[in-house]
Amino acid sequence: MNKLASRKDVARLAGVSEATVSRVFNNISPLREQTKQKVLQAAKELNYHPNVIAQNFAKGKSNNIGVIVPYLPKVNLLSTHYFSELVSGIGARLGELGYGLLLIFQRPDERKDYVQLFHSQRVDGCIILGARHNQNELEAIEKLHQLKLPYCLINQAFSEQHFHFIDADHVDGSYQATTALLEKGFQQVLFLNGPLEFSNSLDRLEGYNKALRQKGISLNEALIFEGNYSRKSGYKAGDKISTLLTKSKAILSANDRMAIGLMQKLNELGFHAGKDYAIIGYDNSEIAKMTTPSLSSVNVPLYEMGQLAAEKVLQSITHDINEQIMIKLSVSLIERESSLHVH
Amino acid sequence: MNKLASRKDVARLAGVSEATVSRVFNNISPLREQTKQKVLQAAKELNYHPNVIAQNFAKGKSNNIGVIVPYLPKVNLLSTHYFSELVSGIGARLGELGYGLLLIFQRPDERKDYVQLFHSQRVDGCIILGARHNQNELEAIEKLHQLKLPYCLINQAFSEQHFHFIDADHVDGSYQATTALLEKGFQQVLFLNGPLEFSNSLDRLEGYNKALRQKGISLNEALIFEGNYSRKSGYKAGDKISTLLTKSKAILSANDRMAIGLMQKLNELGFHAGKDYAIIGYDNSEIAKMTTPSLSSVNVPLYEMGQLAAEKVLQSITHDINEQIMIKLSVSLIERESSLHVH
Repeated sequence: MNKLASRKDVARLAGVSEATVSRVFNNISPLREQTKQKVLQAAKELNYHPNVIAQNFAKGKSNNIGVIVPYLPKVNLLSTHYFSELVSGIGARLGELGYGLLLIFQRPDERKDYVQLFHSQRVDGCIILGARHNQNELEAIEKLHQLKLPYCLINQAFSEQHFHFIDADHVDGSYQATTALLEKGFQQVLFLNGPLEFSNSLDRLEGYNKALRQKGISLNEALIFEGNYSRKSGYKAGDKISTLLTKSKAILSANDRMAIGLMQKLNELGFHAGKDYAIIGYDNSEIAKMTTPSLSSVNVPLYEMGQLAAEKVLQSITHDINEQIMIKLSVSLIERESSLHVH
Repeated sequence: MNKLASRKDVARLAGVSEATVSRVFNNISPLREQTKQKVLQAAKELNYHPNVIAQNFAKGKSNNIGVIVPYLPKVNLLSTHYFSELVSGIGARLGELGYGLLLIFQRPDERKDYVQLFHSQRVDGCIILGARHNQNELEAIEKLHQLKLPYCLINQAFSEQHFHFIDADHVDGSYQATTALLEKGFQQVLFLNGPLEFSNSLDRLEGYNKALRQKGISLNEALIFEGNYSRKSGYKAGDKISTLLTKSKAILSANDRMAIGLMQKLNELGFHAGKDYAIIGYDNSEIAKMTTPSLSSVNVPLYEMGQLAAEKVLQSITHDINEQIMIKLSVSLIERESSLHVH
């Protein structure tokens, strides 16, 4: 299958030795201009390129950054706004800086070994998306950290550990959204959150609670529901949530997909968003602008977070520095029809 | 920065020679069980793994497949249903078969050189998404083909060339959609297509035309509009299209995003999908289920196309075969509220 021209082929066509071909491509003098031109001409004709990887390999470099994404059969995570924005941001920045993006799908139940990726020289650094707060993940990241290998987490902080991460201020995001709902005069806010094994969900709960506290309202666990960030889980939560809509007509959802599933179910039950109740989603995904009514949401700079993570990891590779990366970007509430005119 | 244990470290800790460490990891006899255990124990303690890439490198293999995606600054293509489904399908299948997915963003105006990816041993094969029908692209693919390097195009066929491709039957898709609209009694169908430099758009035009012909209706160019597959371009087309809604109350859009932008604009102008006019989109993206009214659409098995492309490229690598890949998967119309009860 492999019909690529070799150094030998070039040497033969140019009528020089293989060593001369190497000298031309590594620019080693003395070198006669005429010889150089003959070699370059032969290389062009044969479509020969000196082996970049061979050179990098000698230096122990792959010029690729690994991006770890959870793999769930039948759930296509890349199709979600959240992951695709992050991966695009990472890829754009890596591309600009001449690095490749090696996408690595990892089953959540698989034994994690990020160090192996470095050992096998497949990557020079890695960025981990969708990490969960469990023992397996913790140990795998701890090992990377101990070995001072270039890595960065996105959107998952481990409060007790000093891991490198880029995150957004999700405490503030749900604080803003909950406060906006309370200031419209609603006495309580129903809250559809995600699983608590993600630090993102814990942050949202904290922000929700902080907003309530500030208004002198105590947390009522009966008003908090848990989905898994999918549209279906929002749809499923609709039955229970509908029975509470007499008590409170304001809902905060921890992402847009669950909000949309919930709106669909409530619609079927005769409750219309933006009229019968107010709802705010989270992520400000493209879909938020496409629903009727359009969905209020908290904007998270996911693309920028991806770019920043790429930059930070490359910095620690190229400058061989190892400073702590702990960055939280700010978020902002964007109100649309789903929460504007209800009271 | 690099604190990884080396073969030397393992040899020192185990109290054997480096050659012995190599013999253990390459399973070369004779080998005393006791020595083997000592080496494995030392390797475990030091978290040492034999260098897989070094072995692959000797064989000229990277174990990565390159996936070429167009890079447009400010347009996040991965966030579109179309690209994310394809990339996920490819990634899932590659992961199962032990290969990595190297995501390569390519600027459309950049000089294309896919062969270089093989020369530099960054990839063992490549899959090209979003190729356009222009000279630069054509030459770059022709070179790959001539050199018999393992590659595959997805969703772009070049009619005069015998390039390897996996596609869907888009002639049939728009034929089905247009026929369904005509059979509801509409005299004509307005058609919002994508740019004709994509073979996909040409296929859709052919299917649209075929459906008209079969009903004895002649093609009227004044009823055909061109967007660029973005929501905004659909929104922009709304003004012109609204003036024709008296003439025809049926619309076919070449993808869902344009259909949604168009529906939003027409909504602002007082025309409501599913009541005042019927509309069918294309791709059957997740958004189609989330709009109000829900959007009829042509389902394209993008994820399966990605899986199949991965499989075919890996087959030609591992079996060293070079048979022609020309596959078109079938598509199907899914009717929802936007086209069901209008007449």
